[in-house]
Amino acid sequence: MELLKERIRKDGVIKEGNVLKVDSFLNHRMDIDLINQIGREFAVRFEGEKIDQIMTIEASGIGIAAITAQYFNCPVVFAKKTQSINLDGNVLTARVESFTKKKTYDVMVESRFVRPGENILIIDDFMAKGYAARGLVEIIQQAGAKVAGIGIVIEKGFQHGGDGLREDGIRVESLAIIEEMDATAQKIVFRE
Amino acid sequence: MELLKERIRKDGVIKEGNVLKVDSFLNHRMDIDLINQIGREFAVRFEGEKIDQIMTIEASGIGIAAITAQYFNCPVVFAKKTQSINLDGNVLTARVESFTKKKTYDVMVESRFVRPGENILIIDDFMAKGYAARGLVEIIQQAGAKVAGIGIVIEKGFQHGGDGLREDGIRVESLAIIEEMDATAQKIVFRE
Repeated sequence: MELLKERIRKDGVIKEGNVLKVDSFLNHRMDIDLINQIGREFAVRFEGEKIDQIMTIEASGIGIAAITAQYFNCPVVFAKKTQSINLDGNVLTARVESFTKKKTYDVMVESRFVRPGENILIIDDFMAKGYAARGLVEIIQQAGAKVAGIGIVIEKGFQHGGDGLREDGIRVESLAIIEEMDATAQKIVFRE
Repeated sequence: MELLKERIRKDGVIKEGNVLKVDSFLNHRMDIDLINQIGREFAVRFEGEKIDQIMTIEASGIGIAAITAQYFNCPVVFAKKTQSINLDGNVLTARVESFTKKKTYDVMVESRFVRPGENILIIDDFMAKGYAARGLVEIIQQAGAKVAGIGIVIEKGFQHGGDGLREDGIRVESLAIIEEMDATAQKIVFRE
């Protein structure tokens, strides 16, 4: 998605340790016009797929998933990362390692919100090693539902999470795949 | 907002301890059609107000804020609750007590995302004692920006957070205000 790549080149900041900051338009401050175009692009990529529900993970996936869901006319369920008195039913759980927060945590979805046989599209802002997406895939499979695909805004191709999921036969559509990035030169190479 | 009150009556579950669960349509699974109507209603309530940005707080405010922002043609900034290597600039902070999670935490917004003089609309899913909203008001004031108003989907009127903010001269528009609720009878009385 050319508009997105341009925006990453213009406003993304590369930090040491393979961190790409896009917080001025994607995951702290959200440019809603851009996210709308992102939602429309996911709708084009997954056209013809029957999508019953979108699943994402709190927090930065939620806004993107909510706007994307408007194009699919479907609800969104977001996996939670922290226990709350609001989470009191039967809960599906998967263990996930976070790249940016340097810790592992459980992702949780109440089982009544994932129905057997449902086709679920996973949407998230970033994919690095793919651990969060794998956690959601695990939850969907635990529920006897199907993964229709994974839509990612920015994939860090050099961390190979997306490649691994594709090798496992899961359709992963990433709107921008970064092949290389260099914090010193502030240079990004996207996958063709 | 009648449609919302009907939905709360139909699908809301009242638990002991003044907890109202609306996770089947608002803050775990999100009914995107309903949230769209909610966004439209906020646009009607705040019509004529100049809104430069919407501010919310992770996680369950984000989807509602993102969809609402489409009606205001403005960006969204969401306050974060956990430190991350992505949060490394000058950060505005306020201390907040959580009703549902029984703990206090810091809410954080990078200062470059709140500009002096900006008119900011706060959007959130719930208001009980109003602590989260007060945290966001504090952050906005620290930045020298203005609170254009607060839009809340469900206000627990009997916990008086909204009343306190209104007494302080802040415009609070809540789409459903609960005056009383009873876990035993599963009965809700809305404020007229």
